[in-house]
Amino acid sequence: MELGLIGLGKMGGNMRERIRRAGHTVIGYDRNPDVADVHSIDELVNQLEGPRVVWVMVPSGVPTQITIDELAELLSPGDIVVDGGNSRWTDDEIHAEQLNAKGIGFVDCGVSGGVWGLDNGYALMYGGSADHVARVQPIFDALKPEAGGGAVHAGKVGAGHFAKMVHNGIEYAMMQAYAEGWELLEKVDSVTDVREVLRSWQEGTVIRSWLLDLAVRALDEDEHLGKLRGYAEDSGEGRWTVEAAIDNAVPLPAITASLFARFASRQEDSPQMKMVAALRNQFGGHAVESNEK
Amino acid sequence: MELGLIGLGKMGGNMRERIRRAGHTVIGYDRNPDVADVHSIDELVNQLEGPRVVWVMVPSGVPTQITIDELAELLSPGDIVVDGGNSRWTDDEIHAEQLNAKGIGFVDCGVSGGVWGLDNGYALMYGGSADHVARVQPIFDALKPEAGGGAVHAGKVGAGHFAKMVHNGIEYAMMQAYAEGWELLEKVDSVTDVREVLRSWQEGTVIRSWLLDLAVRALDEDEHLGKLRGYAEDSGEGRWTVEAAIDNAVPLPAITASLFARFASRQEDSPQMKMVAALRNQFGGHAVESNEK
Amino acid sequence: MELGLIGLGKMGGNMRERIRRAGHTVIGYDRNPDVADVHSIDELVNQLEGPRVVWVMVPSGVPTQITIDELAELLSPGDIVVDGGNSRWTDDEIHAEQLNAKGIGFVDCGVSGGVWGLDNGYALMYGGSADHVARVQPIFDALKPEAGGGAVHAGKVGAGHFAKMVHNGIEYAMMQAYAEGWELLEKVDSVTDVREVLRSWQEGTVIRSWLLDLAVRALDEDEHLGKLRGYAEDSGEGRWTVEAAIDNAVPLPAITASLFARFASRQEDSPQMKMVAALRNQFGGHAVESNEK
Amino acid sequence: MELGLIGLGKMGGNMRERIRRAGHTVIGYDRNPDVADVHSIDELVNQLEGPRVVWVMVPSGVPTQITIDELAELLSPGDIVVDGGNSRWTDDEIHAEQLNAKGIGFVDCGVSGGVWGLDNGYALMYGGSADHVARVQPIFDALKPEAGGGAVHAGKVGAGHFAKMVHNGIEYAMMQAYAEGWELLEKVDSVTDVREVLRSWQEGTVIRSWLLDLAVRALDEDEHLGKLRGYAEDSGEGRWTVEAAIDNAVPLPAITASLFARFASRQEDSPQMKMVAALRNQFGGHAVESNEK
Repeated sequence: MELGLIGLGKMGGNMRERIRRAGHTVIGYDRNPDVADVHSIDELVNQLEGPRVVWVMVPSGVPTQITIDELAELLSPGDIVVDGGNSRWTDDEIHAEQLNAKGIGFVDCGVSGGVWGLDNGYALMYGGSADHVARVQPIFDALKPEAGGGAVHAGKVGAGHFAKMVHNGIEYAMMQAYAEGWELLEKVDSVTDVREVLRSWQEGTVIRSWLLDLAVRALDEDEHLGKLRGYAEDSGEGRWTVEAAIDNAVPLPAITASLFARFASRQEDSPQMKMVAALRNQFGGHAVESNEK
Repeated sequence: MELGLIGLGKMGGNMRERIRRAGHTVIGYDRNPDVADVHSIDELVNQLEGPRVVWVMVPSGVPTQITIDELAELLSPGDIVVDGGNSRWTDDEIHAEQLNAKGIGFVDCGVSGGVWGLDNGYALMYGGSADHVARVQPIFDALKPEAGGGAVHAGKVGAGHFAKMVHNGIEYAMMQAYAEGWELLEKVDSVTDVREVLRSWQEGTVIRSWLLDLAVRALDEDEHLGKLRGYAEDSGEGRWTVEAAIDNAVPLPAITASLFARFASRQEDSPQMKMVAALRNQFGGHAVESNEK
Repeated sequence: MELGLIGLGKMGGNMRERIRRAGHTVIGYDRNPDVADVHSIDELVNQLEGPRVVWVMVPSGVPTQITIDELAELLSPGDIVVDGGNSRWTDDEIHAEQLNAKGIGFVDCGVSGGVWGLDNGYALMYGGSADHVARVQPIFDALKPEAGGGAVHAGKVGAGHFAKMVHNGIEYAMMQAYAEGWELLEKVDSVTDVREVLRSWQEGTVIRSWLLDLAVRALDEDEHLGKLRGYAEDSGEGRWTVEAAIDNAVPLPAITASLFARFASRQEDSPQMKMVAALRNQFGGHAVESNEK
Repeated sequence: MELGLIGLGKMGGNMRERIRRAGHTVIGYDRNPDVADVHSIDELVNQLEGPRVVWVMVPSGVPTQITIDELAELLSPGDIVVDGGNSRWTDDEIHAEQLNAKGIGFVDCGVSGGVWGLDNGYALMYGGSADHVARVQPIFDALKPEAGGGAVHAGKVGAGHFAKMVHNGIEYAMMQAYAEGWELLEKVDSVTDVREVLRSWQEGTVIRSWLLDLAVRALDEDEHLGKLRGYAEDSGEGRWTVEAAIDNAVPLPAITASLFARFASRQEDSPQMKMVAALRNQFGGHAVESNEK
């Protein structure tokens, strides 16, 4: 089939390639003319034969909103928009209503797979009506891993991004789990080869996983990670997972601890620990460390 | 080679079978005569030709101590004891000294694999001198997964159990991570098929793992886990991991949160939340729930 | 001065009394005619001489919105509305704009003090322009503790509710702190009189506080809190505090742990711990507890 | 009465002064001859008339053990040793047995009050037999606050240090609670005077406390704590509290979070966050920050 694809960055570019390998036609647009097949979204829409399917793969928030606004003007009734970016699930219903008002269908799709997706396939979680999903199914089939699995119709509009968001929340806590264990092993003297301990865990253990494989890979490149700073960004989904948990009164202690560890990793100096230090000094005359030299 | 194996429970029984499949001779002792090959540890020691290797696979703490005390009396200089149970790593150095004083070697070995180990192989983390480890190597080779990996000489005495302990700490947080995500998905209405979402994660995602495979397996047996109580034991290693972290001033927020979630799961009613309820009532006149009907 | 007061519940009723004791005139409206001075908000507005100050003391969310909508219609340019309820700080700017569009001023005010406020005074945190705050100052002075302190102009519109929200977040963690310590003391055998330990802490310790006084008071009524269930509601501010922290990338581990402990206290059975139990059973053959009898 | 006091540091020196002010005789020994009344523990023991009471106020662990060993040699049956230092409660029973074997009594006593104790009195939590405690009572009465309260016979030997340890665990979480809230207030723009918000909380609020008074005092000295580093030591009791909780399967999420925040505050760079950064880079090609310039 024919697909319009807007956004050809690290993810979108590889996805175009994988879909083409499966024999489909992809017309891609990106603000960067070096990677784009057409010069504008308008041109992209015009080149596609109706009824069209246009996949949006741009950053969440304002860029996605602008793109959907433009598509709402350019597309025709019966066309379908897929939001494959990392949009907050609460945006999906708004986008669906905006497009449905013009007779345009909407499917939200969370995509996992990172830089490995081109060859291994992408995991896909999508939400929307059965009709709309069926229209996009050949593309989902092209993107997902050949092994089977890796794709799910999670529920109604918003369910795809919600499932992907929770996936990322779990990912935060799993990364934190390995990281905590690794730090403890590195700290003690009795364990003399931490990297080989992690390598041994790749087979036969309860904690074997793809993330563990990546941890070993990282240690093979830099045995004690001495080249890195202990600094980790977060990309939105972890925050939204905790917010969704709060909305639903679900306790998420491990996932939230993982998010907060990232926040703390980005602080040059911790304001709250200044206050703790100040209080210790006030009541106990405990020494404090000064920023003044 | 020839191995004496003490303790033929869920783990030890399968390990005897796997070692025998690899062509070694195993003389097994257990308090349960139905599964034992000999009637006493004395008989086990006498049937083995020296220099002997005796693998202890009994519960940690007192049972392991009693067994090692008996072996210290019965074995000869040049023999080796392997503690393959879940002993606390701090016990290992004590056991090594006790046995070394009589010329007997000691190797500690953490074993992972559960009920799947017989066919898939066991992951092994062991500590001790290179000489002692070399003597046990054929048994390690028999137990570990055929795929390669799955076995590591982690360091000096104690390092094996330490590495296994950290493995279990990580395991706690990974289980908690999936469990938190699953609860959140189950809670919202938009995601209509949570089990299929987890199934889809088994391929192509960042969070694919053996534990995730088991989660899907559990949901296939009981889609919403309605037959289970939200009650989880802990077996020592999680606690010791947190204690080791405290000794080393390493923050373990996600692993500790997972341990505490298990503690809380076993309380019929939470004393601390009674106090929170009492305080809310004291200052705000907030309603409390009573145990009195 | 003259004040219109809408909402005469547990808080509003006592506040009317305290303001009157200070010599001001209060015209109170409540849906409950037994406590109201007038039959409608319309009547309340008509009885006040302009320029008017009307204090809204109703539940946050829809009730507050409806009341402000009605006041926006009934009041005149130069009048002022004070929202003294537990509104989310993000609502304040919306309400200010809505009212300012008609020339009506807006001040947000967080109020603390619970059932003790009538006699001890209320702590007040308010936000808004200096002009608007000055107009309400005599009422603030009447409500606040006589001892001095207890009232602050925290900043622009929204700052009052934000400060009160953070106050409540801190309150959650302080209550949790005492509750955790109390549970641990109750658990061990060596400490034979836990209540007297807490009583002793009321003087000379680092942790003496009003909340501790209330804890002792609660234990004097019910020494081991045996009459209570370990069940605690949360009233919004704790959730909003964590959400504000996430928006600002501020780690709040203790406050968030306290919020999650309340969520967990309200679950009859923990879904996430079902999943942990299921996973333990899958890999280790560990026994599970069943809901089936 | 007459008291021997060993250890005249920041705490012990002030305690000697306060006990003397109450009319008792104190013979003090310290390794620092500038503050000591006698030149040796031997001399101290000889100058006291029997039956003696000797209060040990030296750092926990080895210094306390050495002192008690020496006293066990020098004292006579019927004498009493009080350990007023910050010993781990598990040491108390060992010390009691060691001394009781020679007919010497033992009382453990946790002391709170810091640099404020001289004038305000010290909070005292003590454990031991009723007989032994009665012998020390005049000294407890001299040390405790005049207001009443502030002293408790918490239970048998060890109960005093256990109660003090829990006190400190609660203290950690309370300090963390204020610190978290303060950081959040400092972070947002709408709250223009954070210090005045905290000052206002000192009266009429639910969270008023002595620690809050100290927080305001610290902010009066340095409004944004800009002179301090966010670096906080921990002194043992916090760790022991968490260990005691683990031994007793009591969840302590807020106290433990506070302890871990201190651990993290002392790390120049977080090893675990290096691993998180490495994993993000591995699967997503996310940028990492380098230590290499």
